[in-house]
Amino acid sequence: MKKIPVLLMGCGGVGRHLLQHIVSCRSLHAGMGVHLRVVGVCDSKSLVASVDVLKEELNDELLSEVCHIKSTGSPLSNLGASGGCQVFNGSEAKRETEEIAKLLGKSTGLAVLDCSASLETVEILIKAVDLGCCVVLANKKPLTSTLEHYDKLALHPRFIRHESTVGAGLPVIASLSRIISSGDPVHRIVGSLSGTLGYVMSELEDGKPLSQVVRAAKTLGYTEPDPRDDLSGMDVARKGLILARLLGKRIIMDSIKIESLYHEDMGPELMSVDDFLHNGIAKLDQNIEERVKRASSNGCVLRYVCVIEGSSVQVGIREVPKDSPLGRLRGSDNIVEIYSRCYKEQPLVIQGAGAGNDTTAAGVLADIIDMQDLFP
Amino acid sequence: MKKIPVLLMGCGGVGRHLLQHIVSCRSLHAGMGVHLRVVGVCDSKSLVASVDVLKEELNDELLSEVCHIKSTGSPLSNLGASGGCQVFNGSEAKRETEEIAKLLGKSTGLAVLDCSASLETVEILIKAVDLGCCVVLANKKPLTSTLEHYDKLALHPRFIRHESTVGAGLPVIASLSRIISSGDPVHRIVGSLSGTLGYVMSELEDGKPLSQVVRAAKTLGYTEPDPRDDLSGMDVARKGLILARLLGKRIIMDSIKIESLYHEDMGPELMSVDDFLHNGIAKLDQNIEERVKRASSNGCVLRYVCVIEGSSVQVGIREVPKDSPLGRLRGSDNIVEIYSRCYKEQPLVIQGAGAGNDTTAAGVLADIIDMQDLFP
Repeated sequence: MKKIPVLLMGCGGVGRHLLQHIVSCRSLHAGMGVHLRVVGVCDSKSLVASVDVLKEELNDELLSEVCHIKSTGSPLSNLGASGGCQVFNGSEAKRETEEIAKLLGKSTGLAVLDCSASLETVEILIKAVDLGCCVVLANKKPLTSTLEHYDKLALHPRFIRHESTVGAGLPVIASLSRIISSGDPVHRIVGSLSGTLGYVMSELEDGKPLSQVVRAAKTLGYTEPDPRDDLSGMDVARKGLILARLLGKRIIMDSIKIESLYHEDMGPELMSVDDFLHNGIAKLDQNIEERVKRASSNGCVLRYVCVIEGSSVQVGIREVPKDSPLGRLRGSDNIVEIYSRCYKEQPLVIQGAGAGNDTTAAGVLADIIDMQDLFP
Repeated sequence: MKKIPVLLMGCGGVGRHLLQHIVSCRSLHAGMGVHLRVVGVCDSKSLVASVDVLKEELNDELLSEVCHIKSTGSPLSNLGASGGCQVFNGSEAKRETEEIAKLLGKSTGLAVLDCSASLETVEILIKAVDLGCCVVLANKKPLTSTLEHYDKLALHPRFIRHESTVGAGLPVIASLSRIISSGDPVHRIVGSLSGTLGYVMSELEDGKPLSQVVRAAKTLGYTEPDPRDDLSGMDVARKGLILARLLGKRIIMDSIKIESLYHEDMGPELMSVDDFLHNGIAKLDQNIEERVKRASSNGCVLRYVCVIEGSSVQVGIREVPKDSPLGRLRGSDNIVEIYSRCYKEQPLVIQGAGAGNDTTAAGVLADIIDMQDLFP
């Protein structure tokens, strides 16, 4: 049985689902000759670790308790040390996390998982890479920071996986990596990479006003608490940057042309969420309605897409033919079209649910299993 | 630099493209820290191998010469031994191939590639697996033989890859493997897995008679020399069987319900290709035309699909909604829809060119690179 030591950073929705998947896959993975040995779990302030990370793991009951505590919104520190674990807080947690990476990185190997949504993990991730650990990210921020950070994280490309940073568990990164390693040059990628904006765009197509669609999306739980976090296009830009960097392009966030769906004077500093939803956004309805109609008269629909071509990444609304895979997309599915030598006239298309904690966590888990040959 | 010794069986179109890709990817792969060391190439009768497979490889000039000789339809034996290689023929070739697997399997590792279309390779493949070699197949036949053969080939699942057996280079197997390893249960797979039948079905949709469409497809080079090899559905059934077995289903070819597009009395034993194309097939036009019309009146189109569900694999014509991804498929693209817990209402869809030597060879190459961590 191959044992893969795992340390999880971030136990929000994705992290908790991941722990649950790890536990529920025990017999499946045993059948594959693999055992995931969770030696530590962190939230932003604390680390829960097994007493002897070389020999012991956090048992499944403890992992369930971690999930329970975090699902109630409590901090991990509430767990309290018990026979099976130690709890470290604040700077001690950081120091101990690094200690575990040092201890396991070069000996048994360690998979450090980042399911947080913070840029603060980047330093420990870089140290972990340096210490011989594998790194799996669902967190986009470390990969969309400076090129210096990126180069350090991707120093050993086999030791880093990040399927769930783009399209949740959809096999976008894995497929693109295969295309790259087979020497098939990628000319162009077009993607609808936000479930929220995908939903918004396909509702607009039916003639509904933007303000109504966004309010409905928020009510349905499709948006971030502040829908402007979706409408700004930043999340899509991050995904585009990750794909572009995977293609070897030396691009930074600032060089991406991003079309925000709201105006600067409606930003979070100037307007509350409520004010934006009930007064601000309606001012955008007419312009969007006109664009929808213009697109329709061209046999097109509007999609909020990311286009990677040459050395440029562009993010914003585009008219796309109604009868293209992108134009036929409905609801919150993501879609990615990859054009290369092998997929020249008709692209390689990958489509499906591109959001959700369950599928995002599944993508992280698949990444870990996919890296198993790196462990002794 | 990690060196991966490679032995290629089969140098038809796919095998030749693969050798060309290996040569043209030299600097790309060097940048990835990998070098593919081709130590031997076989056709059905001969083996060309480097003189000392532990230390030497067939150089790129020699590989180009192999491609040239085979592209003229000549046997590999025409190459003739030179300073850089030895040529073995007949039973000696088989014995020597096994010898290489024995020598390299446990020491430096060896990737044995099957780009042939023959069941005859199955024995040497099983021996290779037994000797610690990795195996990469574009050849469907060894995987669709008996369950005994299958179990022996898939004895060490990490040591066997076969992306190009289904949908050419489309990332179907890789994606399905990820879903499986993440514990996401697959309920149902529906695929249009034959470029030829995809083309035929979308042409029928336009009201053309079957006989005319098949004759046109043959003229365009879309069919096998005997189009009945496509119309029988056997090729699609093989792909369905491979997917079903990947899902862990204990299924054999004989248990698959296959709808052939021609009647038994038009089989190759009873009718020449010409006779079939000019007299036989026209007898099927009316029935197909009626089915097309009936489907259309239900808002559907006909597709030749493979459906995997529960313990059954079924292959044949189905009515599918016009506005489903499958129904919207045009031309020779393949499509696979995967339904699972994560992809429940809307499937995970993978679509694109599913045929062609270039993309099939690219899939094999991606498989080899993907296995690199298994090599010392």
